[in-house]
Amino acid sequence: MSVFITGAGTSHFGKQSHLSPAELAWTAVGEALADRASAGGVLPPFDAVYVGSVFGEPGVAMRALQGYALTGLPIITVENACASGTSAMHEAATAIRQGRYQEVLVLGLEQMSTLFKGPIIPQQSDTEGRTGLAMPSLYAMEASRWLHEGRVTPEQLASVSVKNHRHAMHNDRAQYSGEYTVEQVLGSVMISDPLTLLQCSPISDGAAAVVLSATSASPRDVELLASAQQAGGPWDHRSPDVWGYQLISDTALAAMELAGLGPDDVDLAEVHDAFTIGELTTTEALGLAPQGMAGHYAESGRTALGGQLPVNPSGGLLSRGHPLGATGVAQAAEVVWQLRGEAGGRQVDGAQVGLVETMGGGVSGVDGNACVVALFGRRGI
Amino acid sequence: MSVFITGAGTSHFGKQSHLSPAELAWTAVGEALADRASAGGVLPPFDAVYVGSVFGEPGVAMRALQGYALTGLPIITVENACASGTSAMHEAATAIRQGRYQEVLVLGLEQMSTLFKGPIIPQQSDTEGRTGLAMPSLYAMEASRWLHEGRVTPEQLASVSVKNHRHAMHNDRAQYSGEYTVEQVLGSVMISDPLTLLQCSPISDGAAAVVLSATSASPRDVELLASAQQAGGPWDHRSPDVWGYQLISDTALAAMELAGLGPDDVDLAEVHDAFTIGELTTTEALGLAPQGMAGHYAESGRTALGGQLPVNPSGGLLSRGHPLGATGVAQAAEVVWQLRGEAGGRQVDGAQVGLVETMGGGVSGVDGNACVVALFGRRGI
Repeated sequence: MSVFITGAGTSHFGKQSHLSPAELAWTAVGEALADRASAGGVLPPFDAVYVGSVFGEPGVAMRALQGYALTGLPIITVENACASGTSAMHEAATAIRQGRYQEVLVLGLEQMSTLFKGPIIPQQSDTEGRTGLAMPSLYAMEASRWLHEGRVTPEQLASVSVKNHRHAMHNDRAQYSGEYTVEQVLGSVMISDPLTLLQCSPISDGAAAVVLSATSASPRDVELLASAQQAGGPWDHRSPDVWGYQLISDTALAAMELAGLGPDDVDLAEVHDAFTIGELTTTEALGLAPQGMAGHYAESGRTALGGQLPVNPSGGLLSRGHPLGATGVAQAAEVVWQLRGEAGGRQVDGAQVGLVETMGGGVSGVDGNACVVALFGRRGI
Repeated sequence: MSVFITGAGTSHFGKQSHLSPAELAWTAVGEALADRASAGGVLPPFDAVYVGSVFGEPGVAMRALQGYALTGLPIITVENACASGTSAMHEAATAIRQGRYQEVLVLGLEQMSTLFKGPIIPQQSDTEGRTGLAMPSLYAMEASRWLHEGRVTPEQLASVSVKNHRHAMHNDRAQYSGEYTVEQVLGSVMISDPLTLLQCSPISDGAAAVVLSATSASPRDVELLASAQQAGGPWDHRSPDVWGYQLISDTALAAMELAGLGPDDVDLAEVHDAFTIGELTTTEALGLAPQGMAGHYAESGRTALGGQLPVNPSGGLLSRGHPLGATGVAQAAEVVWQLRGEAGGRQVDGAQVGLVETMGGGVSGVDGNACVVALFGRRGI
């Protein structure tokens, strides 16, 4: 059974502590419903709602949906760390593919600025908390490893931030944007050596929504060709790969096999650049760059808008922002707009196939907590 | 496709702040896996894990499962307020019924004592928070309404607490138990008039796990005949029913239609007695007592062990405890043990069909946030 994205919307991304989580959600859901109605003429009844949220209070989804009288439906709120939004979308898509539902609303929602005044620190009772392994430290170790191996240079890492902040200048929903130099990125405050402030995604508030449908309502509709969700196996510390690399690679392979596509078919990708090194390891793990080439691709402009394979045209987590549960759904919304040709100043010309990848969380001893890879195509692809 | 419960286990329930959430989970998962292995001779590979948890940190499920080397699987953590555990079980069962998976582990997990030192207070930004509608107040208003209508007496309300604390004397995993009088229950500290301390479920830490399988491994296996999950529609304040009543009734009807059973077929029930009034409204909404008779049934012993239709033989949320995400899975484990004839001193003789009902959360303006009803039967029922 096919799955189409028949509506998409997001809130603004940024620190918006003056809004309630429900108010954040209303912007995204409202835009997605209006978009869905504009395609099909009428708004169909929904069969269920799948929500991605990490830190939301119990009932947060119901409060948000009540604003649109979307009550009386099964609501499943999925927590899967940073991959919560795409995990919710994957569950919703599977429900449609298996004939369980026809029309499903997927909502990603997170308000972080009211909860976290600094970086997110793991519980002291966890191994990560006891050893200081907050997420910046985990990614910093990846970066150190690749720097040590000569697989990336400090300037290449910084160029990811330069690129994504520049992309976000064309995205008026983005939290941060701007024209930075590599020197400015490397010279910003050190967070976890070698990752400086401008190489880390910010604390964000935001929401995103997409409507998944079993039948297409309009020629503009984008098809969700395939999605896969996996969690990591036991982490082998002797592995030549950095943390999560194998998991991303395995999940991408599963999604691509389902879609009958390969890395060469991908015209643009929205990937999990929670930190600059994340975009580079992911680009290689997905097969979008040969081993050792992702840094060069970022530095040379190949993965920039106007390049052969734009990565994170939205600005990515680094610049659009990273409200955990909303992130994956926002990635999907960006790909939908790109494939419809509605991405304005950041449009990837002639994009036919888009890829979304989200990596969720870090748990010691496991090679990646959760990964989702999804492939989207223009109708008829 | 049929769904069998081929393994069950729980932790002890109580305030266990000295344990980590993972350690709580290990007891439940370990017992469920040993139980599964004892039935089938070997432990089959699992296809996925569905987890119910409300306040768990990101990655809490992965940390727990890593202890059993249950890595490399899709993990979906569902938050649906108090119905999180049964919502996770419902999603897992649906995945098996639709042929997506063969063997799924369902885990309910919650550690509350480290987070809450008193009652759970809604966010001040929510309508419930602003108006003081913590859960005890919401249920107290239900109780006041039924008292006003003469549909229940204070002594009948108290008799639910007497009964469930007495039941828990046969359950060594229970948080609280004891032989109380109606007078003692009514004379305990007032929490939200008319609900006294012994009429309110406690803050609990605990975990529960069940294994769902597409094929039965042993004649002892219990079948999950049907489950349904719904959320409430807009709340009509002119309704003659108390909050949530219609939702429970609708969800039960859906589950019973799927199972081809009626209320008269049910031999025992584990229902959401977060407060004494909850057990009574639920008993009537489920059709297990005629309107206006649930209080009398509790007082007369009809819903006690030894009566015609024992309700909450485990001690229920009031006495076994109520670790939110674990509660629904613990209810399912209790029904499994009852239908296998393994419930020891609290065994319901000859039980063939058991019912589980969980109600999740309270949101103003909506007739019930989430409800799950599940029906279990001995094989061949």
